[in-house]
Amino acid sequence: MTTQNPVFLPGPTNIPDRLRRAMNTQTIDHRSPEFAEHFKHVLEQLKPIFGTDQGQPFIFPATGTGGWEIAITNTLSPGDKVLAGSYGAFSDKWIALCRQHGLNVEVVDRAWGEAVPADEFARILQDDTRQDIKAVLVTHNETATGVASDVSAVHQALEQADHPALLMVDGVSSIASMPFRMDDWGVDVAVTGSQKGLMPPPGLAVLAMSQRALQAYDQATCHRAYFDIRDMQQANEAGSMPYTVPTNLVYGLEESLQMLQEEGLQQVFARHATLAEGVRRAVWAWGLTLCAQGRQNYSDTVTAIEIPEGFDAGKLVAHARERYKVQFGGGLGNIAGKAFRIGHLGDVTAAMILTGLATIEMAMVDLDYPIQLGSGVAAAQEYYRQNIKG
Amino acid sequence: MTTQNPVFLPGPTNIPDRLRRAMNTQTIDHRSPEFAEHFKHVLEQLKPIFGTDQGQPFIFPATGTGGWEIAITNTLSPGDKVLAGSYGAFSDKWIALCRQHGLNVEVVDRAWGEAVPADEFARILQDDTRQDIKAVLVTHNETATGVASDVSAVHQALEQADHPALLMVDGVSSIASMPFRMDDWGVDVAVTGSQKGLMPPPGLAVLAMSQRALQAYDQATCHRAYFDIRDMQQANEAGSMPYTVPTNLVYGLEESLQMLQEEGLQQVFARHATLAEGVRRAVWAWGLTLCAQGRQNYSDTVTAIEIPEGFDAGKLVAHARERYKVQFGGGLGNIAGKAFRIGHLGDVTAAMILTGLATIEMAMVDLDYPIQLGSGVAAAQEYYRQNIKG
Amino acid sequence: MTTQNPVFLPGPTNIPDRLRRAMNTQTIDHRSPEFAEHFKHVLEQLKPIFGTDQGQPFIFPATGTGGWEIAITNTLSPGDKVLAGSYGAFSDKWIALCRQHGLNVEVVDRAWGEAVPADEFARILQDDTRQDIKAVLVTHNETATGVASDVSAVHQALEQADHPALLMVDGVSSIASMPFRMDDWGVDVAVTGSQKGLMPPPGLAVLAMSQRALQAYDQATCHRAYFDIRDMQQANEAGSMPYTVPTNLVYGLEESLQMLQEEGLQQVFARHATLAEGVRRAVWAWGLTLCAQGRQNYSDTVTAIEIPEGFDAGKLVAHARERYKVQFGGGLGNIAGKAFRIGHLGDVTAAMILTGLATIEMAMVDLDYPIQLGSGVAAAQEYYRQNIKG
Amino acid sequence: MTTQNPVFLPGPTNIPDRLRRAMNTQTIDHRSPEFAEHFKHVLEQLKPIFGTDQGQPFIFPATGTGGWEIAITNTLSPGDKVLAGSYGAFSDKWIALCRQHGLNVEVVDRAWGEAVPADEFARILQDDTRQDIKAVLVTHNETATGVASDVSAVHQALEQADHPALLMVDGVSSIASMPFRMDDWGVDVAVTGSQKGLMPPPGLAVLAMSQRALQAYDQATCHRAYFDIRDMQQANEAGSMPYTVPTNLVYGLEESLQMLQEEGLQQVFARHATLAEGVRRAVWAWGLTLCAQGRQNYSDTVTAIEIPEGFDAGKLVAHARERYKVQFGGGLGNIAGKAFRIGHLGDVTAAMILTGLATIEMAMVDLDYPIQLGSGVAAAQEYYRQNIKG
Repeated sequence: MTTQNPVFLPGPTNIPDRLRRAMNTQTIDHRSPEFAEHFKHVLEQLKPIFGTDQGQPFIFPATGTGGWEIAITNTLSPGDKVLAGSYGAFSDKWIALCRQHGLNVEVVDRAWGEAVPADEFARILQDDTRQDIKAVLVTHNETATGVASDVSAVHQALEQADHPALLMVDGVSSIASMPFRMDDWGVDVAVTGSQKGLMPPPGLAVLAMSQRALQAYDQATCHRAYFDIRDMQQANEAGSMPYTVPTNLVYGLEESLQMLQEEGLQQVFARHATLAEGVRRAVWAWGLTLCAQGRQNYSDTVTAIEIPEGFDAGKLVAHARERYKVQFGGGLGNIAGKAFRIGHLGDVTAAMILTGLATIEMAMVDLDYPIQLGSGVAAAQEYYRQNIKG
Repeated sequence: MTTQNPVFLPGPTNIPDRLRRAMNTQTIDHRSPEFAEHFKHVLEQLKPIFGTDQGQPFIFPATGTGGWEIAITNTLSPGDKVLAGSYGAFSDKWIALCRQHGLNVEVVDRAWGEAVPADEFARILQDDTRQDIKAVLVTHNETATGVASDVSAVHQALEQADHPALLMVDGVSSIASMPFRMDDWGVDVAVTGSQKGLMPPPGLAVLAMSQRALQAYDQATCHRAYFDIRDMQQANEAGSMPYTVPTNLVYGLEESLQMLQEEGLQQVFARHATLAEGVRRAVWAWGLTLCAQGRQNYSDTVTAIEIPEGFDAGKLVAHARERYKVQFGGGLGNIAGKAFRIGHLGDVTAAMILTGLATIEMAMVDLDYPIQLGSGVAAAQEYYRQNIKG
Repeated sequence: MTTQNPVFLPGPTNIPDRLRRAMNTQTIDHRSPEFAEHFKHVLEQLKPIFGTDQGQPFIFPATGTGGWEIAITNTLSPGDKVLAGSYGAFSDKWIALCRQHGLNVEVVDRAWGEAVPADEFARILQDDTRQDIKAVLVTHNETATGVASDVSAVHQALEQADHPALLMVDGVSSIASMPFRMDDWGVDVAVTGSQKGLMPPPGLAVLAMSQRALQAYDQATCHRAYFDIRDMQQANEAGSMPYTVPTNLVYGLEESLQMLQEEGLQQVFARHATLAEGVRRAVWAWGLTLCAQGRQNYSDTVTAIEIPEGFDAGKLVAHARERYKVQFGGGLGNIAGKAFRIGHLGDVTAAMILTGLATIEMAMVDLDYPIQLGSGVAAAQEYYRQNIKG
Repeated sequence: MTTQNPVFLPGPTNIPDRLRRAMNTQTIDHRSPEFAEHFKHVLEQLKPIFGTDQGQPFIFPATGTGGWEIAITNTLSPGDKVLAGSYGAFSDKWIALCRQHGLNVEVVDRAWGEAVPADEFARILQDDTRQDIKAVLVTHNETATGVASDVSAVHQALEQADHPALLMVDGVSSIASMPFRMDDWGVDVAVTGSQKGLMPPPGLAVLAMSQRALQAYDQATCHRAYFDIRDMQQANEAGSMPYTVPTNLVYGLEESLQMLQEEGLQQVFARHATLAEGVRRAVWAWGLTLCAQGRQNYSDTVTAIEIPEGFDAGKLVAHARERYKVQFGGGLGNIAGKAFRIGHLGDVTAAMILTGLATIEMAMVDLDYPIQLGSGVAAAQEYYRQNIKG
């Protein structure tokens, strides 16, 4: 029997019914004035999501990885020095992508579970008196470890060093579910995808670029063509793309932005904060440990949980899927097998989160994890009871 | 924000995605040979759902109440004596409908929470030597109290009294989720609706009639026209109805029957039995009481739960809906305010049930019910863990 | 290959995408305050569709045939005299239904193709000085012949005879596509279904009753229970029905009413008038004849077309369906085989109508009808060109 | 009022209902074994669409333009010489893209309306004794002019010159609607998109590469990262992508492939050929001229039509859209204003095509084009009548 259980992936996330309806449209001419209006409206409505008045949002038919590529190829040149931290699977992937494009990445290594090394960045930027560093990369929310980083601290480091490097931020699993303040934080490029906080299915890379980033285009010699931001800008002015617009995903995004606006972005962020804290309380009630180190780094969209020695998180996730038909995220990279992840971003409610907690408890007990059935659920219930607004 | 929480109503039930897709069709000619094939197929596939080889299934554009009316008006005449038990809101409603049609109902009263009084029926039938009683009504699953009755016991009472009365059964909230054996139990008319175990939205009355019931038509003088079974029979032979067929609901039903067949009816029944027992374990862990009296009467599709003195179940249900956006059934009739109901029929999974249990626990604690957060969830988890098949 | 050709049935009609989306919803509690608001809103918004301020709209889970039954059983008593005209398959069916309910129908016969015999009605009503006639039935738009009748002429006949009989009108295939002015025309009961001008799929009987009709209830002794208007009225006040509300169809109706309001009812009527005239011009260009006699009787929602001697309209319709995958209406009753019908009501456009005309032309020529390919299309094109508003 | 008119764009094309339903799914884990099976199945089922046993299909979250970029960046190096013909907007765009990637394109210019200059290619290849040319580009179906080219003639030119250049073909608007025989024609890279003959909405670049093309990867130094075919190949082996799979579009593609298989590819091609010939007959009946020169070059998926001197095709297309709500393609590039295009690929039927022809006739007459209403329709009807299979 087809089940209707929600997913607890850190993306793609559960698609609201309303959004599915909005995408279920017949073909319209993506070059028509009608569609152009919709598309321009969507681009405009993305601004508050990124927290920007000055920046310019972009949508590409691609994924978040495409977004990373757009960020660097339109602003940098082969051989350019880039400063980045390695502290999880997704920060590492972006570094690898930079290297594929011939960038010279200076990597600051940190243990998985730690956040962006803003202090070390500050030191390095201070020392970079020749201003060789052209960009600093921050993974705002490391999806692999459930760690949120302080983007504004990196911004401050740049400011204190009076350093002109561009600040590029991967907000794939944070934007639209956690506060993101592009203008306030001095972010030059922010990247996300459609299938996370924004809630449509995968297929769109969604970005915003500051005026400074847009100006960097002229000097940037990295190869880009499909991902050329200047071509896209021109086509966007006419409400289109340089190629066929993925119309149905754009309609999904339009509905998503409408839903976020109706709930109110601050309420959306507050909802995610509350739901995430409930998940953490459950983890602690189980006697387990978060991958994320330090309360200030806890992600409000995904929680990575270390499992006890001697168990295999991959088996746990497979068991939950096979026996209970509920999908969780596995551990990635360094922590494969050692951690599992609960995604709690996008269209989620307390009731849905409790489904996930109750299910993973059963799965853990099935596999002889030393945890108590109902214990995590009770801890989350108590927190939700006191903090959920009706 | 639109939530995606499941409903815990005893109907309409959660509609599987697959079934929603099947209903989302453009118009086709309901008099075309193509549609006729679909419709005949659906009628044929209903037979195993009712547990009948000999009986004839019918679909009317109506609700379960329409089904009750079809049952009696096509087989009985004003003034006919009918034997029925009063033991819940739905058994009472059917009695009232009989009286609206001029039938003379002999009612055996039982406390809400008890099942059909088969013993008393046996005595009455034995005494009815003039065979005045033309029909015996049984509410197989009293949705108001969560009580399942033993239909075959009533059949035995009829057989032992060698009594020719027709056996009519309301299986609205049991059929397709609990075992129903029309032929084995000697049922002459069985009634259900689309929006319960069958899973489409409301709008179809679904029945099956034995050959004996169909023959009773000729003597039956109750008024019927829209609900005339003979007209329907003739139109059905051509794969149609005497009026416009509600095509989209029929497509939903076709998909539902396909899903039930794929899972296997015995597996569907076993799933409901397991999920229901988990709900009961939760109730007991809360220290609360079922409305249903006696283990043999527990319904596997809906559980009605008595709340402690001094509380108002209506407020509880409203609170769960308003604060947590989860819908439960309230108490009806005699037990309005004194009980609430958890529907667990149709497309439900253990994960979904745990959502409901976790939510109602929060709602109860919010309203100062003396129960322990997580306690019911843990009891259900333990049961599901040991009994759910992957 | 699945085709996307529109249907040219006189109902069920083509369902707008928007309406399909609106119906594609998960289950909600049909007893919840949220749904009650929607439902009350829908009932209220039906008033302009019927052209009534004073009348009360009703929705039943049933078809138009159920609507006929609701009309008569809630207002009349067995033996009551009813005046009706026989001038098509649907006027005949309502007469037959009246007789099934024990009403004494005085029938005025007219050739198929003629309209309601208002003059003869006037004479009969004048002569009925004892006021035996309790109701006059009018089929506003006879779907079998494509004939629209003058309801107000019957109203005038009643007024001139100072006769208190109720005026009951079948507007199944006219309402929401052609002007209907319940209050102005003195209509007491107006009946339609969901699947015609209103555009959702079949499954709802939609009615409006005047205050006078509602008062007739108390004296009316026809049997009704499922179709009892008083029970429905009480439940409607709470935003519900006496049984489970067919929620998804109601959502479809809500969207339909919204669409009709956005286009503007007068524009909707004008669109149908224009499209219908184009169809008639095509018929004349083919050298064929309308069933409808007299320009004032031409229906703007369905056109019935007499085919030349020696041909079989059933074969024509089957051929169009099988070879070109386009569905037209066949001839019914007296004119079965002798006429076919083009439905042009609901969500139709000039482009869609031309699809139908072009297709039936091919089908006619395939079967050696003496008509010219493109001739009907050209006549309709010329008319649409000059009369369609962009 | 929302219309349900089909579109006559040369893509995106009309989406079959069944395909829309298939895409309307809740989220599933794109890394789950269940999805991996679906995805591998889709990749495998693409082979017959490309006409290849030996080649390997790929799907990227991108558009056809992305497909062009994938083709060249994974097989060529900056400075490599590429041979291409300029004979329409899309062949020109691919040339421009090559140049953006630093390729040295030798362009053979031809008038718009002509096909690939295979003879001139033969001469050039013969002369290229140093084998500087690394790839030959062919736009199989030039969407701007409605010209189909003979790919196998270019293949023969390569063979006769015994030349090792890769043969790369843009089949964006031909594949899945017109015959494409990758293996027989010696094609090394074939590119299409989701939104044309394949019928899902835009958002997927769909390609196939020969073993020779895959081997060229190792020497190719063009920049690629998101579009790296080797990374994709590895991920595909596990039923995934190197990034998040656009699951819903993949489900749409799966249904599309199922539909194409059910109809039978040869029947799909025959259907397009018949429908296209009807469109051409209409054009000639209007007294207008095709952009395409020479019967052997007529495209069966899009027809570009030259309009009379003194008219503006852009106005015609806008008028049809605004007044009749029907969307046609405008003229592009060199023939902007001078031609309009009728797309007839994907899920189209004779009835749908006649809708388009009838509509554009009205629009032309509205704007005083010297054409006869119904003339093109009649010519197409006559052809369809004699050639459509039921």
